[in-house]
Amino acid sequence: MELGMVGLGRMGANMAARLLQAGHRVTGFDAEEEARAQASARGLQAEASLPALVATLAVPRAIWLMVPAGAVVDAVLDELLPLLAPGDLVVDGGNSLYRDSQARAARVAGSGVQWLDVGTSGGLHGLEHGYCLTIGGEADAVARLRPVFEALAPDPGSGWGHVGPAGAGHYAKMIHNGIEYGLMQAYAEGLAVLHRRDDLVADPAQVARIWCDGSVIRSWLLELSADALEADPGLSAIAPYVADSGEGRWTVAEALELDVPAPVITQAMIARLRSRDAEGFGDRVVAALRDAFGGHGTRPG
Amino acid sequence: MELGMVGLGRMGANMAARLLQAGHRVTGFDAEEEARAQASARGLQAEASLPALVATLAVPRAIWLMVPAGAVVDAVLDELLPLLAPGDLVVDGGNSLYRDSQARAARVAGSGVQWLDVGTSGGLHGLEHGYCLTIGGEADAVARLRPVFEALAPDPGSGWGHVGPAGAGHYAKMIHNGIEYGLMQAYAEGLAVLHRRDDLVADPAQVARIWCDGSVIRSWLLELSADALEADPGLSAIAPYVADSGEGRWTVAEALELDVPAPVITQAMIARLRSRDAEGFGDRVVAALRDAFGGHGTRPG
Repeated sequence: MELGMVGLGRMGANMAARLLQAGHRVTGFDAEEEARAQASARGLQAEASLPALVATLAVPRAIWLMVPAGAVVDAVLDELLPLLAPGDLVVDGGNSLYRDSQARAARVAGSGVQWLDVGTSGGLHGLEHGYCLTIGGEADAVARLRPVFEALAPDPGSGWGHVGPAGAGHYAKMIHNGIEYGLMQAYAEGLAVLHRRDDLVADPAQVARIWCDGSVIRSWLLELSADALEADPGLSAIAPYVADSGEGRWTVAEALELDVPAPVITQAMIARLRSRDAEGFGDRVVAALRDAFGGHGTRPG
Repeated sequence: MELGMVGLGRMGANMAARLLQAGHRVTGFDAEEEARAQASARGLQAEASLPALVATLAVPRAIWLMVPAGAVVDAVLDELLPLLAPGDLVVDGGNSLYRDSQARAARVAGSGVQWLDVGTSGGLHGLEHGYCLTIGGEADAVARLRPVFEALAPDPGSGWGHVGPAGAGHYAKMIHNGIEYGLMQAYAEGLAVLHRRDDLVADPAQVARIWCDGSVIRSWLLELSADALEADPGLSAIAPYVADSGEGRWTVAEALELDVPAPVITQAMIARLRSRDAEGFGDRVVAALRDAFGGHGTRPG
């Protein structure tokens, strides 16, 4: 079928490429000339404006947004909606907050436009392995885009599904990423202990690779961990600074709102905050208090 | 080759069966008559005493212990060592504390007996898929038992390896299980949030199954989670009580001793303690204090 892809970054360009490989007709748009040039070099027709993109598509149109979550999605919708007609379909495949997706579904419905929110997982490897897709919205819109989901997924029959009404696709993706934070931190802590005891276990990369086959903790993230340690056992080329894109803290906030204890996901989020806390003001406070009541001394700041 | 298996419980009996399937000669021993009867029904020669087991093996012997960690291992060694001759080999494939394994390696060396400690992962599914094995000890003992490791592992060329001197195999397994605690708790917390929002995502089992294919969080533990939720979406047949067998708390203690921050593995361990804390004395204290200073009231105990 025919699809317009808005956003030709790492995810959008690879997803467009996977759809092209499956025989779909995809036109792209990106505001950045370099992104358009790279996509064109990969065989994608890349337009320089949203009106130009919309003009390449026959009604009823289907347009997939793969842009950063937050204000960018709303800015795209502001420009895009007046260009669309009732019966067109907009998909947000990014990592939007599910409440925003619920509000946007209501907004586009006011123009007679259908909505789907799709939690998309798979990272850079999705081009080859396929993407895992959790879809929120109306069943008829899901059915309409089924050929696209079947082409993006690892297999037409698995790794994708309609999980609920508008917002549900991004809700599931939020939880996915919260779990991801906890998994990554658990591997990290175990490997950090192992790394510290190199007098006993000299090669943590070897151990990580052994665990990839047959152990209870085998996973794709463990395979990536083994790859990273094999390439650089001390990871000395990588600063101990971990960013976050929102889904982890949203999961923590959601768990608190629902009175669900989520200590591991919360601690994984806090570990990322600590990794970025170069000032360490809280640690200075504890050191000051420890010195104040016990005379334990402090290190010069 | 020829191997004696001491302990024919869930792990030992399945490992003996996998070795028999690979054409090795295995004799077993278990103190429990029922375990011997079940093993015999699966084609294993099961002896009723350690002397009888040792008598079935030609020197130099290789004997694999698959018994509960702790005092049982020492009790078996107390009885076994006098029956062995210099050049024999003892393997501890259970979940022993690595410091105990280091001490036992020194002890058996005093009798001229070789030692290997093997961290064995794979659970009940290891019979079919193979076992992941991290091995500590001397290289010549590892080389001697190579055919056994190749048969137990998922593949002769992967999923097993010699990771260091005596103790290293169980050290790696301790870390493996600490990571396992964190992974399980991360999945559990995400699925608990999802379960609470069944107004939005009606079927967490469906979501877990979708994630198994192509997502960043795909893993064997996630597949087991999807299986469990599909069989019983509310898990109402399972009490919210989680036991532990030591490796998790050993990992936490080791991290503290090494000054390695391990908040997620620690919180996963604490979550298990909370699951078993029916008395809730600490919660009573906090409720009492909250009432004492703020008059917030308490629930009757």
